[in-house]
Amino acid sequence: MSESGLSYAELHEAWPALSAGERVEGFSLLSRAAAEELFDTLDARDQLELILNMPSSERRLWLRLLAPDDAADVIQAADEEQRGPLLELLDEPTRKEVSALLAYAEDAAGGLMNPRFARLRPDMTVDAAISYLRRQRAEQVETIYYAYVLDNQQHLLGVVSLRDLVTAPSDRLVRDVMRTATVTVREQTDQEVVSHLFAEHDLVAVPVVDEEGRMKGIVTVDDIVDVVREEATEDMQKIGGTAALDAPYLQVNLAEMLKKRVGWLAALLVGESLAVTAMERYQGAIAQAAVLASFMPLIISSGGNSGSQAATLVVRAMALGEVRLRDWFRVIRREVATGLGLGSMLGVIAFGLTLVWQLFFTRVLHQPGFGEHYLFVGVCVACSILAVALWGTFAGSMLPFVMRAAGFDPASASAPLIATLVDVTGVVIYFSIAGIILRGTLL
Amino acid sequence: MSESGLSYAELHEAWPALSAGERVEGFSLLSRAAAEELFDTLDARDQLELILNMPSSERRLWLRLLAPDDAADVIQAADEEQRGPLLELLDEPTRKEVSALLAYAEDAAGGLMNPRFARLRPDMTVDAAISYLRRQRAEQVETIYYAYVLDNQQHLLGVVSLRDLVTAPSDRLVRDVMRTATVTVREQTDQEVVSHLFAEHDLVAVPVVDEEGRMKGIVTVDDIVDVVREEATEDMQKIGGTAALDAPYLQVNLAEMLKKRVGWLAALLVGESLAVTAMERYQGAIAQAAVLASFMPLIISSGGNSGSQAATLVVRAMALGEVRLRDWFRVIRREVATGLGLGSMLGVIAFGLTLVWQLFFTRVLHQPGFGEHYLFVGVCVACSILAVALWGTFAGSMLPFVMRAAGFDPASASAPLIATLVDVTGVVIYFSIAGIILRGTLL
Repeated sequence: MSESGLSYAELHEAWPALSAGERVEGFSLLSRAAAEELFDTLDARDQLELILNMPSSERRLWLRLLAPDDAADVIQAADEEQRGPLLELLDEPTRKEVSALLAYAEDAAGGLMNPRFARLRPDMTVDAAISYLRRQRAEQVETIYYAYVLDNQQHLLGVVSLRDLVTAPSDRLVRDVMRTATVTVREQTDQEVVSHLFAEHDLVAVPVVDEEGRMKGIVTVDDIVDVVREEATEDMQKIGGTAALDAPYLQVNLAEMLKKRVGWLAALLVGESLAVTAMERYQGAIAQAAVLASFMPLIISSGGNSGSQAATLVVRAMALGEVRLRDWFRVIRREVATGLGLGSMLGVIAFGLTLVWQLFFTRVLHQPGFGEHYLFVGVCVACSILAVALWGTFAGSMLPFVMRAAGFDPASASAPLIATLVDVTGVVIYFSIAGIILRGTLL
Repeated sequence: MSESGLSYAELHEAWPALSAGERVEGFSLLSRAAAEELFDTLDARDQLELILNMPSSERRLWLRLLAPDDAADVIQAADEEQRGPLLELLDEPTRKEVSALLAYAEDAAGGLMNPRFARLRPDMTVDAAISYLRRQRAEQVETIYYAYVLDNQQHLLGVVSLRDLVTAPSDRLVRDVMRTATVTVREQTDQEVVSHLFAEHDLVAVPVVDEEGRMKGIVTVDDIVDVVREEATEDMQKIGGTAALDAPYLQVNLAEMLKKRVGWLAALLVGESLAVTAMERYQGAIAQAAVLASFMPLIISSGGNSGSQAATLVVRAMALGEVRLRDWFRVIRREVATGLGLGSMLGVIAFGLTLVWQLFFTRVLHQPGFGEHYLFVGVCVACSILAVALWGTFAGSMLPFVMRAAGFDPASASAPLIATLVDVTGVVIYFSIAGIILRGTLL
């Protein structure tokens, strides 16, 4: 604990609940080492907030502590008009690097990479390579554990790990110990694709090259952990029927929160109003047999729930790369079989529930319940549930494919969207089935 | 491409679509190097399938290729009765290590760690330490980039990176260059907590210690990438209203898939049948004013959608550690304000939609539409939507807290569960409001 009585752990713990002013104040009370440690654990948004609220004399110091890729993230998080002044705080070579990084899309490999990596020449000896790497300071290169072998035009020839070097005879040439078959990504490669590569090959770092094979930087696995978390968060929020928040939940203000949430809800409300018009057609049937209305929540929610399940499973499988666009037919086959199975089971349960409630109403409450034709009502409900569960499962599993084929994020096939889609058609399915089964009894 | 005409890339590409037999056959056609590369990219489940389908002479070879933590994962994935024979295939020291790892919960740090890490003594010189690390082969230690300094009782004293060693004077002692303030985790620490530490501190490896501070192994960041993906997948599937699949979507057979999905759907169906009984009470009102039934899907789905949103946002924020149990009151405050805002906007839109549809029915279709009291109906719908959206938002944001406080996974507060909960109460809210507003006109 520092003399001020404020420790790293205390401030770190309280951080989410503090205002911007309190954060700067707390931060200024930390020892230099504790402040650096805390600064490192903050995300780009918090680092920016802190820097902007510091006296301008200190801003330069803290911004310069960051590696070029991290500095670029901070500047990216700033408003348009703040970016220029922030860039000015950097030293000349870093400013050039950061400006280059800012030109890449935030979610591309180019936007993630650090342009400072260890470079070797193929004709160096192992001994010379090791002593070159030993002289690299932490500010100069992201890691010395992987060194990249480049020719004079910066083309990537191979990669050599420090481990390979220290275990090789010291007079061999780098070209003879380097590995040539190495995984690379392009500057424009989407970060989700990059994260799949890391997960699949258990990579620690991956080189980023341009279309001519010239090396531009490296992406390291610690950045990928953040990418995987971010991408999953975004997908989950979309599936839940919100626009991606792009910030921690507790840090989004009310206006922003409403904006991110009302869009989908309003669109779904308008869509759901089609169900109102569909219901209009059946007002006669409902007036004749009000009992039909009672089962409506049951039936449409079964469709919505089956659809949410299917959509969520397919969206996640797509995000993990387990299911690709061309797998659509395999998925249909599986989901139709699953939908039939689920629908049958739910139909049987619903029929049983109808009987149980009927007994409860007539024997316990001495009320008419679903009326004398309750067995027909039960069959009608069971068949409708089978149909909507099958339809929900089918629609929920296919909509992500439609979204992706149309160039949208499959996660936009959200649970609420599927539920709404299935609600509207569910009403039509239910009353059509009722029209057939109950003709001559209730209708 | 090997002589057989089958390359790593071709087999890797086709892999998800192949049967177990085809996989083994394809695998046997690869060159040794390509086979090893492919084997490395497979997950534990696929590695197990491959090993079990190989001739027994080859099983030993491939199982022994794996590091102890990976071998433990493979054996963990096997059925109870296969585990013994698989363990028998390992050499004696590895068998002991793997058996120790199998005793840990799969999702605890102990289940993730590799017990083979580089150990140094504090009184070694830097020079001696480097040459000791140079002699470690890949099978002996997971990484030589981080070495752990232990006393005679295996207590962790500090950590030193290979980078620190190669840049330090060769005659200094390890104790003088090592870092002592290092992040550690306990064997029982949940993997989700471990992954938060990696994300926050940008760690590459973290030492696992027992309660007496004796070092047991290391968890490396490449395993954490998998953990983060797995945990997000599990949460997403739960939010979508399924049990966690625990396997890639296309590899779950139909019976297993039905089992994972029908549980929640059946429970929700039973829950939703409460809405049927709630509706029973209002059959009189519906028979009098069938128009009320038309708006039911609209109203209950608005509640369900607002609830799904809120639940998804809060569950994800909890998983990321952004929201903790004691933040419940801050979340209520935010969500009540958000629910009021969303509900008001949706209510106004719904009122507008009622007018638009009424005009459409009466002017275009020359039908009665919602009848002469359509303005009262519109007000009733708007007020009900405000109420259910507020209630949905409140219930959706609080249920994850209730789940966590009760010791369950907050992700079990799934979108379908919230939707069902809100449906049942939504019916009561709607008809109660209708009873007040429409008394004397329609009711």
